[in-house]
Amino acid sequence: MTKFDEATQAIRVDDGTYDVCIDPGYAIGGPLNGGYLMAVILRAAVDASPFDHPVSTTAQFLKAPAPGPAQVKVEPLKAGRTAAFARATLVQDGVAQIESLITTATLNDVGPIYAEKSAHDMPALEDCVKLPDPKPESGMTLSAQMELLFDPPTIGWLTGNPTGRPESRAYFRMAEPQDPDPYVLALAVDALPPVVFSAGARGWAPTVDLTWHLRALPAPGWLTLLGSGRLISDGWFDEEVEVRDSAGRLVAQARQLARVGRG
Amino acid sequence: MTKFDEATQAIRVDDGTYDVCIDPGYAIGGPLNGGYLMAVILRAAVDASPFDHPVSTTAQFLKAPAPGPAQVKVEPLKAGRTAAFARATLVQDGVAQIESLITTATLNDVGPIYAEKSAHDMPALEDCVKLPDPKPESGMTLSAQMELLFDPPTIGWLTGNPTGRPESRAYFRMAEPQDPDPYVLALAVDALPPVVFSAGARGWAPTVDLTWHLRALPAPGWLTLLGSGRLISDGWFDEEVEVRDSAGRLVAQARQLARVGRG
Repeated sequence: MTKFDEATQAIRVDDGTYDVCIDPGYAIGGPLNGGYLMAVILRAAVDASPFDHPVSTTAQFLKAPAPGPAQVKVEPLKAGRTAAFARATLVQDGVAQIESLITTATLNDVGPIYAEKSAHDMPALEDCVKLPDPKPESGMTLSAQMELLFDPPTIGWLTGNPTGRPESRAYFRMAEPQDPDPYVLALAVDALPPVVFSAGARGWAPTVDLTWHLRALPAPGWLTLLGSGRLISDGWFDEEVEVRDSAGRLVAQARQLARVGRG
Repeated sequence: MTKFDEATQAIRVDDGTYDVCIDPGYAIGGPLNGGYLMAVILRAAVDASPFDHPVSTTAQFLKAPAPGPAQVKVEPLKAGRTAAFARATLVQDGVAQIESLITTATLNDVGPIYAEKSAHDMPALEDCVKLPDPKPESGMTLSAQMELLFDPPTIGWLTGNPTGRPESRAYFRMAEPQDPDPYVLALAVDALPPVVFSAGARGWAPTVDLTWHLRALPAPGWLTLLGSGRLISDGWFDEEVEVRDSAGRLVAQARQLARVGRG
Protein backbone atom coordinates (compact mmCIF):
# COMPACT_ATOMS: atom_id res chain seq x y z
CA MET A 1 0.00 0.00 0.00
CA THR A 2 1.44 3.37 -1.01
CA LYS A 3 1.35 6.47 1.20
CA PHE A 4 -1.36 7.88 -1.05
CA ASP A 5 -3.45 4.71 -0.82
CA GLU A 6 -3.14 4.93 2.95
CA ALA A 7 -3.95 8.66 3.07
CA THR A 8 -7.14 8.06 1.06
CA GLN A 9 -8.26 4.86 2.82
CA ALA A 10 -11.95 4.56 3.69
CA ILE A 11 -12.92 1.90 6.22
CA ARG A 12 -16.48 0.61 6.07
CA VAL A 13 -18.26 1.00 9.40
CA ASP A 14 -21.73 0.04 8.25
CA ASP A 15 -23.93 0.31 5.17
CA GLY A 16 -23.26 3.80 3.93
CA THR A 17 -20.75 4.96 6.56
CA TYR A 18 -16.98 5.00 6.16
CA ASP A 19 -14.29 6.19 8.55
CA VAL A 20 -11.50 8.18 6.97
CA CYS A 21 -8.53 10.11 8.32
CA ILE A 22 -7.66 13.34 6.57
CA ASP A 23 -3.91 13.51 6.14
CA PRO A 24 -2.11 16.81 6.83
CA GLY A 25 0.33 15.97 4.01
CA TYR A 26 -2.00 17.27 1.28
CA ALA A 27 -2.37 20.89 2.39
CA ILE A 28 -2.06 23.97 0.22
CA GLY A 29 -1.30 26.50 2.93
CA GLY A 30 -4.09 26.18 5.48
CA PRO A 31 -6.72 24.21 3.57
CA LEU A 32 -6.40 20.72 2.16
CA ASN A 33 -6.30 20.12 -1.57
CA GLY A 34 -9.76 19.54 -3.03
CA GLY A 35 -8.55 16.77 -5.34
CA TYR A 36 -7.12 14.82 -2.40
CA LEU A 37 -10.42 15.17 -0.54
CA MET A 38 -12.33 13.95 -3.61
CA ALA A 39 -10.06 10.89 -3.73
CA VAL A 40 -10.98 10.08 -0.12
CA ILE A 41 -14.70 10.39 -0.89
CA LEU A 42 -14.34 8.26 -4.04
CA ARG A 43 -12.71 5.39 -2.11
CA ALA A 44 -15.89 5.11 -0.07
CA ALA A 45 -18.27 5.65 -3.00
CA VAL A 46 -16.61 3.00 -5.17
CA ASP A 47 -16.50 0.52 -2.28
CA ALA A 48 -20.26 0.99 -1.84
CA SER A 49 -20.96 0.62 -5.59
CA PRO A 50 -21.54 -2.56 -7.62
CA PHE A 51 -19.20 -1.03 -10.25
CA ASP A 52 -15.44 -0.48 -10.28
CA HIS A 53 -14.79 3.08 -11.45
CA PRO A 54 -15.95 6.62 -10.64
CA VAL A 55 -16.86 7.85 -14.15
CA SER A 56 -18.34 11.14 -12.98
CA THR A 57 -17.83 13.16 -9.82
CA THR A 58 -19.23 16.53 -8.84
CA ALA A 59 -18.09 18.06 -5.56
CA GLN A 60 -19.36 21.17 -3.84
CA PHE A 61 -16.79 22.53 -1.40
CA LEU A 62 -18.96 23.73 1.47
CA LYS A 63 -16.26 24.01 4.12
CA ALA A 64 -12.56 23.36 4.56
CA PRO A 65 -12.14 20.19 6.65
CA ALA A 66 -9.21 19.88 9.04
CA PRO A 67 -6.68 17.04 9.18
CA GLY A 68 -7.88 14.18 11.36
CA PRO A 69 -10.80 11.78 11.59
CA ALA A 70 -13.87 12.29 9.41
CA GLN A 71 -16.59 10.19 7.84
CA VAL A 72 -17.94 9.66 4.36
CA LYS A 73 -21.66 8.97 4.19
CA VAL A 74 -22.72 7.25 1.00
CA GLU A 75 -26.36 7.21 -0.07
CA PRO A 76 -26.98 4.99 -3.11
CA LEU A 77 -29.57 6.61 -5.39
CA LYS A 78 -29.99 4.08 -8.17
CA ALA A 79 -28.07 1.18 -9.67
CA GLY A 80 -28.75 0.18 -13.27
CA ARG A 81 -27.11 -2.29 -15.61
CA THR A 82 -24.29 -0.01 -16.78
CA ALA A 83 -24.04 2.67 -14.11
CA ALA A 84 -24.93 3.49 -10.51
CA PHE A 85 -25.65 6.86 -8.93
CA ALA A 86 -24.84 7.89 -5.37
CA ARG A 87 -24.64 10.89 -3.14
CA ALA A 88 -21.58 11.04 -0.87
CA THR A 89 -20.92 13.55 1.87
CA LEU A 90 -17.68 14.17 3.75
CA VAL A 91 -18.68 14.91 7.34
CA GLN A 92 -16.42 16.12 10.15
CA ASP A 93 -17.61 16.69 13.72
CA GLY A 94 -21.16 16.20 12.50
CA VAL A 95 -20.89 18.99 9.91
CA ALA A 96 -21.03 18.38 6.12
CA GLN A 97 -17.78 19.61 4.54
CA ILE A 98 -18.06 18.41 0.94
CA GLU A 99 -21.18 17.31 -0.88
CA SER A 100 -20.85 15.16 -3.96
CA LEU A 101 -22.77 13.24 -6.61
CA ILE A 102 -20.91 10.29 -8.04
CA THR A 103 -21.68 8.06 -10.99
CA THR A 104 -19.89 4.73 -11.09
CA ALA A 105 -19.53 2.23 -13.92
CA THR A 106 -16.95 -0.29 -15.04
CA LEU A 107 -14.68 0.90 -17.83
CA ASN A 108 -13.21 -1.59 -20.27
CA ASP A 109 -9.92 -1.24 -22.06
CA VAL A 110 -11.21 -0.92 -25.62
CA GLY A 111 -10.07 1.16 -28.55
CA PRO A 112 -12.01 4.41 -28.97
CA ILE A 113 -14.46 5.05 -31.83
CA TYR A 114 -13.33 8.67 -31.90
CA ALA A 115 -10.52 10.41 -30.00
CA GLU A 116 -9.61 14.04 -30.44
CA LYS A 117 -5.95 14.83 -30.21
CA SER A 118 -4.65 17.06 -27.46
CA ALA A 119 -4.99 20.75 -28.27
CA HIS A 120 -1.52 21.45 -26.86
CA ASP A 121 1.83 19.96 -27.70
CA MET A 122 3.88 19.86 -24.53
CA PRO A 123 7.64 20.47 -24.61
CA ALA A 124 9.80 17.43 -23.81
CA LEU A 125 10.02 16.47 -20.13
CA GLU A 126 13.63 17.68 -19.90
CA ASP A 127 12.61 21.13 -21.15
CA CYS A 128 9.98 21.54 -18.42
CA VAL A 129 10.64 23.09 -15.03
CA LYS A 130 9.76 22.63 -11.38
CA LEU A 131 8.42 25.29 -9.09
CA PRO A 132 10.86 26.28 -6.33
CA ASP A 133 10.36 24.23 -3.15
CA PRO A 134 7.85 25.95 -0.88
CA LYS A 135 9.05 27.38 2.43
CA PRO A 136 8.24 25.04 5.33
CA GLU A 137 6.16 27.79 7.01
CA SER A 138 3.96 28.08 3.89
CA GLY A 139 2.08 24.91 4.83
CA MET A 140 2.29 23.69 1.22
CA THR A 141 2.75 20.06 2.25
CA LEU A 142 1.08 18.85 -0.98
CA SER A 143 4.19 19.77 -2.98
CA ALA A 144 6.16 16.92 -1.41
CA GLN A 145 3.64 14.30 -2.57
CA MET A 146 3.87 14.95 -6.28
CA GLU A 147 6.22 15.98 -9.04
CA LEU A 148 5.05 18.68 -11.42
CA LEU A 149 7.18 19.70 -14.40
CA PHE A 150 5.75 22.83 -16.03
CA ASP A 151 5.58 24.08 -19.56
CA PRO A 152 7.83 27.12 -18.83
CA PRO A 153 5.68 30.04 -20.13
CA THR A 154 2.75 28.90 -17.99
CA ILE A 155 4.69 29.63 -14.79
CA GLY A 156 6.08 32.92 -16.08
CA TRP A 157 3.79 34.60 -13.52
CA LEU A 158 6.24 33.47 -10.84
CA THR A 159 8.91 35.81 -12.19
CA GLY A 160 6.58 38.64 -13.16
CA ASN A 161 5.89 37.43 -16.71
CA PRO A 162 2.35 36.06 -16.83
CA THR A 163 1.20 35.03 -20.31
CA GLY A 164 -1.95 37.14 -19.92
CA ARG A 165 -4.20 34.11 -20.45
CA PRO A 166 -5.58 31.66 -17.86
CA GLU A 167 -3.44 28.59 -18.49
CA SER A 168 -1.25 26.06 -16.70
CA ARG A 169 0.33 22.96 -18.18
CA ALA A 170 2.54 20.35 -16.54
CA TYR A 171 3.67 16.75 -16.42
CA PHE A 172 2.51 15.09 -13.22
CA ARG A 173 3.38 12.00 -11.21
CA MET A 174 3.31 10.99 -7.59
CA ALA A 175 6.61 11.48 -5.73
CA GLU A 176 6.53 7.90 -4.43
CA PRO A 177 6.40 4.96 -6.85
CA GLN A 178 2.68 4.84 -7.64
CA ASP A 179 1.03 4.18 -10.97
CA PRO A 180 -1.82 6.54 -11.81
CA ASP A 181 -5.30 5.21 -11.08
CA PRO A 182 -8.70 6.91 -10.74
CA TYR A 183 -7.84 8.21 -7.25
CA VAL A 184 -4.55 9.70 -8.42
CA LEU A 185 -6.54 11.31 -11.24
CA ALA A 186 -8.89 12.90 -8.68
CA LEU A 187 -5.80 14.53 -7.16
CA ALA A 188 -4.36 15.42 -10.58
CA VAL A 189 -7.41 17.34 -11.84
CA ASP A 190 -6.96 19.83 -8.98
CA ALA A 191 -3.15 19.77 -8.72
CA LEU A 192 -2.16 22.73 -10.91
CA PRO A 193 -1.73 26.25 -9.56
CA PRO A 194 -4.91 28.22 -10.39
CA VAL A 195 -4.97 29.04 -14.13
CA VAL A 196 -5.78 32.67 -13.27
CA PHE A 197 -2.24 33.22 -11.94
CA SER A 198 -1.14 33.20 -15.56
CA ALA A 199 -3.69 35.91 -16.32
CA GLY A 200 -2.21 38.15 -13.61
CA ALA A 201 -4.41 37.29 -10.63
CA ARG A 202 -2.95 36.43 -7.23
CA GLY A 203 -4.04 35.00 -3.93
CA TRP A 204 -6.09 32.08 -2.70
CA ALA A 205 -8.55 31.02 -5.42
CA PRO A 206 -11.08 28.78 -3.69
CA THR A 207 -12.85 26.11 -5.74
CA VAL A 208 -16.61 26.40 -5.38
CA ASP A 209 -17.47 23.26 -7.28
CA LEU A 210 -15.64 20.81 -9.48
CA THR A 211 -16.88 18.14 -11.87
CA TRP A 212 -14.61 15.59 -13.45
CA HIS A 213 -15.11 12.62 -15.70
CA LEU A 214 -12.95 9.53 -15.79
CA ARG A 215 -12.75 8.55 -19.46
CA ALA A 216 -10.23 5.69 -19.45
CA LEU A 217 -7.90 3.91 -17.04
CA PRO A 218 -4.48 5.56 -17.25
CA ALA A 219 -1.34 3.76 -18.43
CA PRO A 220 1.65 3.76 -16.05
CA GLY A 221 3.98 6.74 -16.29
CA TRP A 222 3.71 10.52 -16.35
CA LEU A 223 0.35 12.20 -16.77
CA THR A 224 0.02 15.44 -18.71
CA LEU A 225 -2.23 18.14 -17.23
CA LEU A 226 -3.52 20.77 -19.62
CA GLY A 227 -5.24 23.60 -17.75
CA SER A 228 -7.08 26.53 -19.29
CA GLY A 229 -9.95 28.93 -18.70
CA ARG A 230 -12.38 30.84 -20.90
CA LEU A 231 -13.79 33.64 -18.75
CA ILE A 232 -12.69 35.62 -15.71
CA SER A 233 -15.54 37.92 -14.74
CA ASP A 234 -17.34 39.28 -11.70
CA GLY A 235 -15.00 37.43 -9.32
CA TRP A 236 -15.60 34.03 -10.96
CA PHE A 237 -13.45 31.93 -13.25
CA ASP A 238 -13.63 28.53 -14.90
CA GLU A 239 -10.70 26.13 -14.84
CA GLU A 240 -10.71 23.32 -17.35
CA VAL A 241 -8.17 20.50 -16.92
CA GLU A 242 -7.67 17.79 -19.48
CA VAL A 243 -5.53 14.84 -18.39
CA ARG A 244 -3.65 12.64 -20.85
CA ASP A 245 -1.78 9.48 -19.88
CA SER A 246 1.73 8.51 -21.01
CA ALA A 247 0.22 6.98 -24.17
CA GLY A 248 -1.44 10.31 -25.03
CA ARG A 249 -4.94 9.07 -24.29
CA LEU A 250 -7.59 11.31 -22.74
CA VAL A 251 -8.14 9.83 -19.28
CA ALA A 252 -9.89 12.64 -17.40
CA GLN A 253 -11.73 15.90 -18.09
CA ALA A 254 -12.51 18.41 -15.36
CA ARG A 255 -14.07 21.81 -14.98
CA GLN A 256 -14.23 23.81 -11.81
CA LEU A 257 -15.89 27.09 -10.98
CA ALA A 258 -13.77 29.10 -8.59
CA ARG A 259 -13.46 32.55 -7.06
CA VAL A 260 -10.69 34.94 -8.03
CA GLY A 261 -8.50 35.63 -5.00
CA ARG A 262 -8.11 39.07 -3.49
CA GLY A 263 -4.35 39.31 -3.12
CA MET B 1 -45.92 34.84 -18.29
CA THR B 2 -44.68 32.92 -21.34
CA LYS B 3 -45.57 29.29 -22.07
CA PHE B 4 -42.04 28.31 -21.01
CA ASP B 5 -42.32 30.24 -17.75
CA GLU B 6 -45.59 28.42 -17.08
CA ALA B 7 -44.20 25.00 -18.03
CA THR B 8 -41.31 25.45 -15.59
CA GLN B 9 -43.30 26.98 -12.73
CA ALA B 10 -42.52 25.71 -9.22
CA ILE B 11 -45.07 26.51 -6.52
CA ARG B 12 -43.80 26.57 -2.95
CA VAL B 13 -45.76 24.18 -0.72
CA ASP B 14 -43.58 24.47 2.35
CA ASP B 15 -39.92 24.97 3.27
CA GLY B 16 -38.09 22.85 0.79
CA THR B 17 -41.05 21.41 -1.15
CA TYR B 18 -42.33 22.70 -4.49
CA ASP B 19 -45.16 21.44 -6.67
CA VAL B 20 -44.40 21.35 -10.38
CA CYS B 21 -46.25 20.03 -13.41
CA ILE B 22 -44.16 18.37 -16.08
CA ASP B 23 -45.35 19.58 -19.47
CA PRO B 24 -45.72 17.04 -22.31
CA GLY B 25 -44.63 19.76 -24.76
CA TYR B 26 -40.91 19.19 -24.09
CA ALA B 27 -40.61 15.54 -25.12
CA ILE B 28 -37.95 14.03 -27.37
CA GLY B 29 -39.79 10.91 -28.43
CA GLY B 30 -40.88 9.20 -25.22
CA PRO B 31 -38.71 10.91 -22.61
CA LEU B 32 -38.71 14.58 -21.68
CA ASN B 33 -35.77 16.80 -22.50
CA GLY B 34 -33.21 16.91 -19.69
CA GLY B 35 -32.62 20.63 -20.08
CA TYR B 36 -36.31 21.37 -19.61
CA LEU B 37 -36.36 19.22 -16.47
CA MET B 38 -33.31 21.06 -15.12
CA ALA B 39 -35.12 24.38 -15.70
CA VAL B 40 -38.04 23.13 -13.57
CA ILE B 41 -35.68 22.09 -10.76
CA LEU B 42 -33.81 25.40 -10.95
CA ARG B 43 -37.00 27.42 -10.52
CA ALA B 44 -37.45 25.78 -7.13
CA ALA B 45 -33.78 25.93 -6.14
CA VAL B 46 -33.46 29.63 -6.94
CA ASP B 47 -36.72 30.43 -5.13
CA ALA B 48 -35.32 28.71 -2.03
CA SER B 49 -31.96 30.50 -2.26
CA PRO B 50 -30.94 33.91 -0.88
CA PHE B 51 -29.25 34.54 -4.26
CA ASP B 52 -30.68 35.23 -7.72
CA HIS B 53 -28.89 32.96 -10.20
CA PRO B 54 -28.00 29.28 -10.61
CA VAL B 55 -24.26 29.58 -11.34
CA SER B 56 -23.61 25.85 -11.25
CA THR B 57 -25.91 22.87 -11.75
CA THR B 58 -25.11 19.18 -11.83
CA ALA B 59 -27.92 16.75 -12.61
CA GLN B 60 -27.89 12.97 -12.49
CA PHE B 61 -30.66 11.52 -14.63
CA LEU B 62 -31.79 8.55 -12.55
CA LYS B 63 -35.12 7.93 -14.28
CA ALA B 64 -37.29 9.39 -17.01
CA PRO B 65 -40.19 11.23 -15.35
CA ALA B 66 -43.60 11.29 -17.07
CA PRO B 67 -45.66 14.38 -17.89
CA GLY B 68 -47.88 15.42 -15.00
CA PRO B 69 -47.53 16.43 -11.35
CA ALA B 70 -44.21 16.07 -9.56
CA GLN B 71 -42.35 17.72 -6.72
CA VAL B 72 -38.97 19.34 -6.27
CA LYS B 73 -37.44 18.85 -2.84
CA VAL B 74 -34.78 21.43 -2.02
CA GLU B 75 -32.32 20.84 0.80
CA PRO B 76 -30.15 23.89 1.54
CA LEU B 77 -26.60 22.78 2.39
CA LYS B 78 -24.82 26.04 3.14
CA ALA B 79 -25.27 29.73 2.43
CA GLY B 80 -22.22 31.98 2.48
CA ARG B 81 -21.70 35.63 1.58
CA THR B 82 -21.22 35.10 -2.17
CA ALA B 83 -22.77 31.71 -2.88
CA ALA B 84 -25.19 29.13 -1.52
CA PHE B 85 -25.20 25.37 -2.01
CA ALA B 86 -28.26 23.14 -2.22
CA ARG B 87 -29.34 19.67 -3.15
CA ALA B 88 -32.54 19.46 -5.21
CA THR B 89 -34.39 16.30 -6.17
CA LEU B 90 -37.19 15.91 -8.70
CA VAL B 91 -39.59 13.35 -7.21
CA GLN B 92 -42.59 11.75 -8.93
CA ASP B 93 -44.93 9.29 -7.22
CA GLY B 94 -42.49 9.17 -4.33
CA VAL B 95 -39.56 8.10 -6.51
CA ALA B 96 -36.47 10.28 -7.12
CA GLN B 97 -36.17 10.97 -10.86
CA ILE B 98 -33.35 13.52 -11.05
CA GLU B 99 -30.80 14.32 -8.38
CA SER B 100 -28.97 17.63 -8.51
CA LEU B 101 -26.48 19.84 -6.73
CA ILE B 102 -26.97 23.54 -7.37
CA THR B 103 -24.80 26.51 -6.48
CA THR B 104 -26.51 29.88 -6.52
CA ALA B 105 -25.01 33.37 -6.45
CA THR B 106 -25.94 36.78 -7.80
CA LEU B 107 -24.18 37.73 -11.02
CA ASN B 108 -23.51 41.37 -11.79
CA ASP B 109 -23.28 42.90 -15.22
CA VAL B 110 -19.61 43.85 -15.22
CA GLY B 111 -16.97 43.77 -17.93
CA PRO B 112 -14.79 40.65 -17.86
CA ILE B 113 -11.11 40.66 -16.85
CA TYR B 114 -10.44 38.01 -19.47
CA ALA B 115 -12.73 36.55 -22.13
CA GLU B 116 -11.64 33.99 -24.67
CA LYS B 117 -13.18 34.35 -28.08
CA SER B 118 -15.40 31.63 -29.46
CA ALA B 119 -13.45 28.79 -31.05
CA HIS B 120 -15.92 28.61 -33.96
CA ASP B 121 -17.12 31.28 -36.35
CA MET B 122 -20.72 30.51 -37.20
CA PRO B 123 -22.08 31.18 -40.68
CA ALA B 124 -24.62 34.02 -40.92
CA LEU B 125 -28.13 33.21 -39.70
CA GLU B 126 -29.50 33.20 -43.26
CA ASP B 127 -26.96 30.55 -44.27
CA CYS B 128 -28.02 28.19 -41.49
CA VAL B 129 -30.71 25.54 -41.86
CA LYS B 130 -33.58 24.01 -39.91
CA LEU B 131 -34.13 20.32 -39.36
CA PRO B 132 -37.22 18.99 -41.15
CA ASP B 133 -40.34 19.12 -38.96
CA PRO B 134 -40.66 15.88 -36.96
CA LYS B 135 -43.55 13.55 -37.77
CA PRO B 136 -46.39 13.93 -35.24
CA GLU B 137 -46.09 10.25 -34.27
CA SER B 138 -42.40 10.76 -33.36
CA GLY B 139 -43.37 12.42 -30.08
CA MET B 140 -40.75 15.16 -30.67
CA THR B 141 -42.92 17.87 -29.14
CA LEU B 142 -39.83 19.83 -28.04
CA SER B 143 -39.18 20.91 -31.63
CA ALA B 144 -42.24 23.19 -31.61
CA GLN B 145 -40.96 25.13 -28.57
CA MET B 146 -37.71 26.35 -30.05
CA GLU B 147 -36.07 27.45 -33.26
CA LEU B 148 -32.71 25.91 -34.13
CA LEU B 149 -30.79 27.06 -37.20
CA PHE B 150 -27.85 24.75 -37.84
CA ASP B 151 -24.39 25.24 -39.23
CA PRO B 152 -25.06 23.05 -42.31
CA PRO B 153 -22.14 20.54 -42.15
CA THR B 154 -23.04 19.63 -38.57
CA ILE B 155 -26.37 18.16 -39.71
CA GLY B 156 -24.88 16.40 -42.73
CA TRP B 157 -25.56 13.12 -40.84
CA LEU B 158 -29.23 13.63 -41.69
CA THR B 159 -28.51 13.08 -45.38
CA GLY B 160 -25.83 10.43 -44.95
CA ASN B 161 -22.89 12.86 -44.76
CA PRO B 162 -21.68 12.97 -41.16
CA THR B 163 -18.55 15.08 -40.66
CA GLY B 164 -16.88 12.18 -38.83
CA ARG B 165 -16.37 14.28 -35.69
CA PRO B 166 -18.72 14.73 -32.71
CA GLU B 167 -20.04 18.24 -33.32
CA SER B 168 -23.28 20.20 -33.54
CA ARG B 169 -23.65 23.97 -33.88
CA ALA B 170 -26.78 26.07 -34.12
CA TYR B 171 -28.45 29.37 -33.42
CA PHE B 172 -31.19 28.96 -30.82
CA ARG B 173 -34.20 30.91 -29.64
CA MET B 174 -37.56 30.08 -28.15
CA ALA B 175 -40.41 29.83 -30.67
CA GLU B 176 -42.57 32.20 -28.62
CA PRO B 177 -41.36 35.74 -27.84
CA GLN B 178 -39.10 35.07 -24.84
CA ASP B 179 -35.77 36.64 -24.03
CA PRO B 180 -33.11 34.18 -22.90
CA ASP B 181 -32.64 33.91 -19.14
CA PRO B 182 -30.94 31.28 -16.93
CA TYR B 183 -33.90 28.88 -17.32
CA VAL B 184 -33.86 29.15 -21.09
CA LEU B 185 -30.11 28.49 -20.89
CA ALA B 186 -30.80 25.28 -18.93
CA LEU B 187 -32.93 24.17 -21.88
CA ALA B 188 -30.39 25.40 -24.43
CA VAL B 189 -27.41 23.45 -23.05
CA ASP B 190 -29.28 20.20 -23.79
CA ALA B 191 -31.14 21.29 -26.94
CA LEU B 192 -28.81 20.10 -29.70
CA PRO B 193 -29.07 16.66 -31.31
CA PRO B 194 -26.39 14.43 -29.71
CA VAL B 195 -22.95 15.43 -31.05
CA VAL B 196 -22.23 11.74 -31.77
CA PHE B 197 -24.72 11.76 -34.68
CA SER B 198 -22.12 13.75 -36.58
CA ALA B 199 -19.55 11.04 -35.84
CA GLY B 200 -21.81 8.39 -37.38
CA ALA B 201 -23.67 7.10 -34.31
CA ARG B 202 -27.44 6.73 -34.26
CA GLY B 203 -30.23 6.10 -31.81
CA TRP B 204 -31.26 7.34 -28.40
CA ALA B 205 -28.22 8.73 -26.57
CA PRO B 206 -29.27 9.05 -22.93
CA THR B 207 -27.58 11.68 -20.76
CA VAL B 208 -26.17 10.13 -17.61
CA ASP B 209 -25.15 13.37 -15.96
CA LEU B 210 -24.82 16.98 -16.99
CA THR B 211 -23.06 19.91 -15.37
CA TRP B 212 -23.47 23.47 -16.56
CA HIS B 213 -22.24 26.82 -15.40
CA LEU B 214 -24.03 30.11 -15.87
CA ARG B 215 -21.29 32.66 -16.57
CA ALA B 216 -23.26 35.80 -17.42
CA LEU B 217 -26.85 36.90 -17.94
CA PRO B 218 -27.64 36.65 -21.66
CA ALA B 219 -28.54 39.65 -23.82
CA PRO B 220 -31.85 39.47 -25.73
CA GLY B 221 -31.75 37.80 -29.14
CA TRP B 222 -30.43 34.59 -30.61
CA LEU B 223 -28.12 32.34 -28.65
CA THR B 224 -25.34 30.40 -30.36
CA LEU B 225 -24.83 26.79 -29.26
CA LEU B 226 -21.42 25.27 -30.00
CA GLY B 227 -21.42 21.53 -29.33
CA SER B 228 -18.43 19.22 -29.50
CA GLY B 229 -16.96 16.08 -27.99
CA ARG B 230 -13.47 14.75 -27.39
CA LEU B 231 -13.82 10.99 -26.89
CA ILE B 232 -16.27 8.28 -27.90
CA SER B 233 -15.17 5.06 -26.24
CA ASP B 234 -16.56 2.00 -24.51
CA GLY B 235 -20.17 3.16 -25.01
CA TRP B 236 -19.57 6.59 -23.42
CA PHE B 237 -19.17 10.02 -24.91
CA ASP B 238 -18.73 13.58 -23.66
CA GLU B 239 -20.76 16.44 -25.05
CA GLU B 240 -19.48 19.93 -24.44
CA VAL B 241 -21.80 22.86 -25.19
CA GLU B 242 -20.66 26.46 -25.08
CA VAL B 243 -23.41 29.08 -25.28
CA ARG B 244 -22.79 32.61 -26.54
CA ASP B 245 -25.38 35.37 -26.45
CA SER B 246 -26.22 37.77 -29.29
CA ALA B 247 -23.37 40.04 -28.15
CA GLY B 248 -20.92 37.13 -28.49
CA ARG B 249 -20.40 36.77 -24.74
CA LEU B 250 -19.89 33.39 -23.09
CA VAL B 251 -23.06 32.89 -21.02
CA ALA B 252 -23.03 29.15 -20.31
CA GLN B 253 -20.66 26.17 -20.41
CA ALA B 254 -21.90 22.59 -20.14
CA ARG B 255 -20.50 19.11 -20.26
CA GLN B 256 -22.52 15.94 -20.18
CA LEU B 257 -21.52 12.31 -20.04
CA ALA B 258 -23.85 10.19 -22.11
CA ARG B 259 -24.24 6.70 -23.54
CA VAL B 260 -23.88 5.99 -27.23
CA GLY B 261 -27.20 4.69 -28.60
CA ARG B 262 -27.59 1.26 -30.08
CA GLY B 263 -29.47 2.02 -33.26
